[in-house]
Amino acid sequence: MRLPHDEALRRLTAADHGVLATAHPDRGADAVPAVFAVVGLHLAVPVDTVKPKSSTALRRTRNLAIDPRATFLVEHWDATDWTRLWWVRAELHHLPGEGDLGSPTPTTEGLAAALVARYPQYADRPFTELLVFEILALSAWSGEP
Amino acid sequence: MRLPHDEALRRLTAADHGVLATAHPDRGADAVPAVFAVVGLHLAVPVDTVKPKSSTALRRTRNLAIDPRATFLVEHWDATDWTRLWWVRAELHHLPGEGDLGSPTPTTEGLAAALVARYPQYADRPFTELLVFEILALSAWSGEP
Repeated sequence: MRLPHDEALRRLTAADHGVLATAHPDRGADAVPAVFAVVGLHLAVPVDTVKPKSSTALRRTRNLAIDPRATFLVEHWDATDWTRLWWVRAELHHLPGEGDLGSPTPTTEGLAAALVARYPQYADRPFTELLVFEILALSAWSGEP
Repeated sequence: MRLPHDEALRRLTAADHGVLATAHPDRGADAVPAVFAVVGLHLAVPVDTVKPKSSTALRRTRNLAIDPRATFLVEHWDATDWTRLWWVRAELHHLPGEGDLGSPTPTTEGLAAALVARYPQYADRPFTELLVFEILALSAWSGEP
């Protein structure tokens, strides 16, 4: 039921979207769906201008400025066969120095390119910044007996 | 893009599963997929014996004993049309006194019955306990312009 690390990383990298959980000062934990890319042991969530936002100062960004710890979850749902359920959870640490697309590092460039390759909506790179994380650990569960 | 409260509650109640985020003492935020039921302003996540677990003392339960704050997220994904994306997030407070199926309150009974009605896998009520939460607030986002 626990999946090995390589299989967990494979499923994480291939998933089409996930949920980013951050520490909220009042609510304890915040969670929001997010598209993402993984390159090596870095994971990026774009702050894009495609999906309409109520504010450019996103709660997830404010949370990470206070507490850089985060969790990213990808999962597979199957209503009828619960032995086919699985999830992978990445324990993350936010790297604020890697997110600036105005002066990108090679890591930032690689992650931005991966996002463009994964999502046709990002063909024109409509990012204002990236949230870049180091993957500290992976845990994964499968309902297969 | 922000959805009204009634529509948020309707989408939350109708969703087939979601993600429970709790405060982890070391990782900041934890997240795990979960089935659930909503009755009135209570939300229940079963601790079941259907999906195999590595331990009966689940991390989510240990987290909530330390910090009763939690968030439950349901979401709709659409790979091709991002105007069809939406999510609803419920801000929760854990009510440990409502989770014991050995001496259930009317609230506990109603939530257990709702879980049985929602999931055929739960026809025989294979719960050891419920995690019962009060819904403190809802926020919801839709990609529709």
